[in-house]
Amino acid sequence: MLRYLDVRSRTRTEMIDITSLVQEQVRAANARSGVCNLFVLHTTAGLTINEGADPAVQRDMMTFLNRLVPLDPYFTHAEGNSDAHIKSTLTGTSLSVFISEGKLLLGTWQSIYLCEFDGPRPRRVAMKLCVDG
Amino acid sequence: MLRYLDVRSRTRTEMIDITSLVQEQVRAANARSGVCNLFVLHTTAGLTINEGADPAVQRDMMTFLNRLVPLDPYFTHAEGNSDAHIKSTLTGTSLSVFISEGKLLLGTWQSIYLCEFDGPRPRRVAMKLCVDG
Amino acid sequence: MLRYLDVRSRTRTEMIDITSLVQEQVRAANARSGVCNLFVLHTTAGLTINEGADPAVQRDMMTFLNRLVPLDPYFTHAEGNSDAHIKSTLTGTSLSVFISEGKLLLGTWQSIYLCEFDGPRPRRVAMKLCVDG
Repeated sequence: MLRYLDVRSRTRTEMIDITSLVQEQVRAANARSGVCNLFVLHTTAGLTINEGADPAVQRDMMTFLNRLVPLDPYFTHAEGNSDAHIKSTLTGTSLSVFISEGKLLLGTWQSIYLCEFDGPRPRRVAMKLCVDG
Repeated sequence: MLRYLDVRSRTRTEMIDITSLVQEQVRAANARSGVCNLFVLHTTAGLTINEGADPAVQRDMMTFLNRLVPLDPYFTHAEGNSDAHIKSTLTGTSLSVFISEGKLLLGTWQSIYLCEFDGPRPRRVAMKLCVDG
Repeated sequence: MLRYLDVRSRTRTEMIDITSLVQEQVRAANARSGVCNLFVLHTTAGLTINEGADPAVQRDMMTFLNRLVPLDPYFTHAEGNSDAHIKSTLTGTSLSVFISEGKLLLGTWQSIYLCEFDGPRPRRVAMKLCVDG
């Protein structure tokens, strides 16, 4: 029941809607009811759930986070991407979404996002379905 | 085992203690041991666990978040509530609490909160119990 | 399947790598495949996953959080540690990590951290293994 989602980001910071990729795996597994656990296997990316209708929300979110955690000179990590590590901790790396009647149980406006904070690069999300009964 | 908690907020931003509502459902389900998963079905609200004893903690938390994410003119989302979406991602939308001997396993000072960032309005939290054995 | 990890912090704010403590419990339980749920039983500490290779990442993270949430005079909580409560909500109190072939499924650079925001003191993390099959 362990599966992987492979995603490729195209810029340094962006939010990638992975809802349909996750839903596809739920369907492939024929999971009717349960919990879908997601886990991003990187330290400079995150997972979050937020609005999927208006792309301005993603843009405002990234603008805010980039202002909040700038590439400040006081950081000491030699790779120079401490901002990305910090954003990863602020958004989080694991998520749980319920499955009901074969579908992800999301609110009207909710989508699942991979947050890229140090792209572009290939990213991998592990996914584990805990099916009821 | 899927249940819903319905909560009504009264102001734009506030923390609502839902611990007893959650505990009540655990009791109603006669769950003795397991995991209680919670998921808020909105993109301008969040779930968090924090101190339940002194209301000043909730007040300081909301004051801080309102200063951190102001209603800035650089936001582009037409609905004008980008701050609420951002706060939702910062606090998170899903939580897991253990159940032991029929009760939520919380630390002495811990309460479960629905965080309202764009109220007042009705809010819904989905709840799924994964019972042991 | 409920276990506890006891950790002692040595300063007011620090990140403590608990990966090997968690892995040890997974081994002791002989869990081959499943989900390892972690929950910190305090309101002034958090759990996060981030880089374990270069200690500079932890240092930069703590420096950032201490600047972001200072001990401001506008806080009203009489205990004077509102900053620690806020940091706890920003990092989160629960985490889920998958178990595969008897080991925690983590990315190359990922470690599990207890975040201390109001130490030094003893801290307790509850751990619950949901084993497959």
